Amino acid sequence: MATVKLVEYEAANPAVRKVYDDIMSTRQIDWINNFWKALAVQPELLGRTWEGVKAVMAPGILDPLVKEMIYIAVSVVNGCRYCINSHTAAARKKGMTDEMLSELMAVVGMANQTNALASGFQVELDEAFEDGGRNS
Amino acid sequence: MATVKLVEYEAANPAVRKVYDDIMSTRQIDWINNFWKALAVQPELLGRTWEGVKAVMAPGILDPLVKEMIYIAVSVVNGCRYCINSHTAAARKKGMTDEMLSELMAVVGMANQTNALASGFQVELDEAFEDGGRNS
Amino acid sequence: MATVKLVEYEAANPAVRKVYDDIMSTRQIDWINNFWKALAVQPELLGRTWEGVKAVMAPGILDPLVKEMIYIAVSVVNGCRYCINSHTAAARKKGMTDEMLSELMAVVGMANQTNALASGFQVELDEAFEDGGRNS
Amino acid sequence: MATVKLVEYEAANPAVRKVYDDIMSTRQIDWINNFWKALAVQPELLGRTWEGVKAVMAPGILDPLVKEMIYIAVSVVNGCRYCINSHTAAARKKGMTDEMLSELMAVVGMANQTNALASGFQVELDEAFEDGGRNS
Amino acid sequence: MATVKLVEYEAANPAVRKVYDDIMSTRQIDWINNFWKALAVQPELLGRTWEGVKAVMAPGILDPLVKEMIYIAVSVVNGCRYCINSHTAAARKKGMTDEMLSELMAVVGMANQTNALASGFQVELDEAFEDGGRNS
Amino acid sequence: MATVKLVEYEAANPAVRKVYDDIMSTRQIDWINNFWKALAVQPELLGRTWEGVKAVMAPGILDPLVKEMIYIAVSVVNGCRYCINSHTAAARKKGMTDEMLSELMAVVGMANQTNALASGFQVELDEAFEDGGRNS
Repeated sequence: MATVKLVEYEAANPAVRKVYDDIMSTRQIDWINNFWKALAVQPELLGRTWEGVKAVMAPGILDPLVKEMIYIAVSVVNGCRYCINSHTAAARKKGMTDEMLSELMAVVGMANQTNALASGFQVELDEAFEDGGRNS
Repeated sequence: MATVKLVEYEAANPAVRKVYDDIMSTRQIDWINNFWKALAVQPELLGRTWEGVKAVMAPGILDPLVKEMIYIAVSVVNGCRYCINSHTAAARKKGMTDEMLSELMAVVGMANQTNALASGFQVELDEAFEDGGRNS
Repeated sequence: MATVKLVEYEAANPAVRKVYDDIMSTRQIDWINNFWKALAVQPELLGRTWEGVKAVMAPGILDPLVKEMIYIAVSVVNGCRYCINSHTAAARKKGMTDEMLSELMAVVGMANQTNALASGFQVELDEAFEDGGRNS
Repeated sequence: MATVKLVEYEAANPAVRKVYDDIMSTRQIDWINNFWKALAVQPELLGRTWEGVKAVMAPGILDPLVKEMIYIAVSVVNGCRYCINSHTAAARKKGMTDEMLSELMAVVGMANQTNALASGFQVELDEAFEDGGRNS
Repeated sequence: MATVKLVEYEAANPAVRKVYDDIMSTRQIDWINNFWKALAVQPELLGRTWEGVKAVMAPGILDPLVKEMIYIAVSVVNGCRYCINSHTAAARKKGMTDEMLSELMAVVGMANQTNALASGFQVELDEAFEDGGRNS
Repeated sequence: MATVKLVEYEAANPAVRKVYDDIMSTRQIDWINNFWKALAVQPELLGRTWEGVKAVMAPGILDPLVKEMIYIAVSVVNGCRYCINSHTAAARKKGMTDEMLSELMAVVGMANQTNALASGFQVELDEAFEDGGRNS
C-alpha cells in the first residue's frame, strides 16, 4: 500500500487522531485518505503538513477552486499520479467541470511546450521582463 | 542572446512579419520579445506556437489571469527562468498583486512538497480518487 | 515486463553472466532483479552501469546507508517508481527504520517546497552563497 | 533581485522581524538571506516556511550534515541554482569537504542515470521490492 | 480509464470524428488510442494538438525514426509512462531494433547523469560554449 | 566558477592529466572545458564519467549527430544550461544547422506538451502499447 505501514484510525495515537479528526471535520468527510495515513508514521510530519495544507488551501485572495487547479498543474508537471487524481477529485467536488479541466490542461500543456522552447533555445530574458516586470 | 540568431522585424520575411504583427496587435504592444524572435528561425514553428498560445490564453471558461497564474506554476516546476519572469510580468499587467503572487507561490510550494511525500512513500491511490473521482 | 525482453540467467551469454555473477556475489544474494535483466540487452551498457553503481555505492567517505538515502531522494524527485521501491528496500536492508525514512522524506518534501519558492520568486543569489560559499 | 520586492529588516513589520530574529539567533548569524526577504511579502508564508525548515533541519535521527546533503541532492535534480548554492554553503559550514561533496555528486549522478534507465525501459517492479521491500 | 470520459468514435461529434479519421488515415491504422479520446472532451484541444503532432512528426530534415527517439528521450526524463510506451511502439513500427533502443537509452542515461553533475557543481559556462557555440 | 575549485591542467596530478590528455586527443582539441575540471576533484569520478561519455558517444548504430541531439533533448527537459549550450556547440561542430536545431526543438516542445496532457488526464495505456508494443 506504501513503503511504510499506513496508520489506521483505530491504531493511531492521540496526536495522530487529533489530526485525523481535524482533517475530517475541516473537509466534512468521514474517512482519511492514504496520504495522511502514510505521513502518520511521524506524527510531527503529519501535523505540520496538514497545518500547511489547511492554511494554504483555505479561502484567501485566490478562489479555492483556482487553488485546486494550480495544485493539479504542479502535480502534472511532477507526474505525481496520486496527487493528480486526488486533487482532480477535490477540484470536481468544488465545481470543476470537464470543460474547465480541459481548459486547465490546455494551458498546462502549452506552458510545458513553450518552457521547453525557451529553455532549448536558451533565450535571453528581455529587459522588460526582468524581476517579473516589477520595475517596468 | 540565444543558441540561434534572433530574427529582428527588419530582417524578417513576410510570413514571420505577419506573425509578429499579429502578436503586437493582439497584445497591444509595439515590440516583440526574444522568445518569438528565436522561434522565427523556423517560421512554421513560430506560427504554430503563436496560434496555440493565442487560442489557449484567450478568454474562455477560465479567467485570463488565472491562466497566467497556471502558466507561472508550470514554469516554476520546470525551473524555466525566462518563462517565470515573462509570465509574471504578463500576470502583473492583468492585475496580479504581490499578495496574489505570494498566495500562488504558497500553493505551488505546498503542492511540490506533498507531491514529493506522496511519491516518496509510494502511497497507493484510494479507490475514491480513481479516475480523478469521476465515478465517485 | 519491460520495453525490451528481459535476459534471464539461463539465456545470458558469458559476458552477461559474468556481470550477473558479480552482482550476486557483491550483494550476497541469489537472484538478479529486473533492472539488470533489461540492461543486459546491450552487455556493454549492463557492464558499465554495474561497474558505476558498484564503485559509487561502495563504502567511501559517506556511509553506505546515507548513500542509499540520497539515492532515494533523487528517485523521489524524478518520480521513478522502480527506483524508489528498490532503493527503499536496499536501505531497509542496511538498517533504515521507519523513523529514518520518515525523517528523510520530511527533508525531501521541505527541499522540494523551498526549491519551488526560490525559483518561483526568482530570488537572486546572495553574495555569500556564490560558488556554494567556497570563498566566504 | 526577485519578482517581489525584498523586505529588508528595517522596513519589516513586527511579525516579520520576529521571524528574522529567530532565523539569525537559530543560525547564529547577523544577516538575512534573500530567500526569506522574498517570502516576507506574505508574513504567514514566511513564518510557516521558516518553522518547517527549522523543525526539519534540527538534529534528529539523521545527522544535520546528512540532511544538508539530501537537501542539495533534491535541489540538483530540480536544477534550483539558488538552493544548490545556499545549501552547499550551509553544508560546508557543517563540515562538508570537497571529497564529501564529490562523493555526494557521484551518487546523485548515478541515481539520475539509473532512474532514466529504469524509466526508459519501463522495467517492472520485482516482487521483492514491492512496498519498498517492507514485507520481504 | 482517465480523469475525463473517453470519447469513442460512435459517440463523437462531427468535428471530433474528422480528426479521428485523419489520425487513422495518416497513420494507416483502424483504431484510435486513448490519448486522443481524452483530448476529445475539448474538440479544439484535440484538433490543435493533432495538427501540431502531425506537422512536427512528418518527414522533414530529421528522419522520422530519429524524431520518435527524441520523443522517447523527452518522455523518459518526464517519466511519462503512457508516452514512453506509445512512442516506443511507434518507433518499433518505424524500424527501431532492441540495439537501437538500447543505444538510445545509453545516451539518455549518460545525459541525465552529466546534467546532474554540471548542475550539482554549478559549473560555469565556458566562453566557447556561449550561445551554443554559435559565435565560436 | 563552480562549487568546487576547478583543477587546471598545470595543477593536475598524473591520473587527472591522463584523462585530460585523452579528452583532448579524442576530441582533437587543445583545451579542457570546465565540466571536467570540476569533476577532477575526485579523479575516480572524472575517469569513470569520461569513460562513460566516450563509450556512449562513440559511433555506434546511431549517428553521432543524432546522439548529440538526444543529449540536447534530455538537457532541455532537465533545464541544464551548461549542458544545453555545450552540447548544442558539439552538435554544431558535427554539422547541425539552424534548421535541424529548430526541428529538434519542435519535437522536444511537442513531446513536452503531450507528456503533460497524457499525464494530466491520467490516460490509461492502450493494450497495443504495453511493453512498448513489443508483443503487438
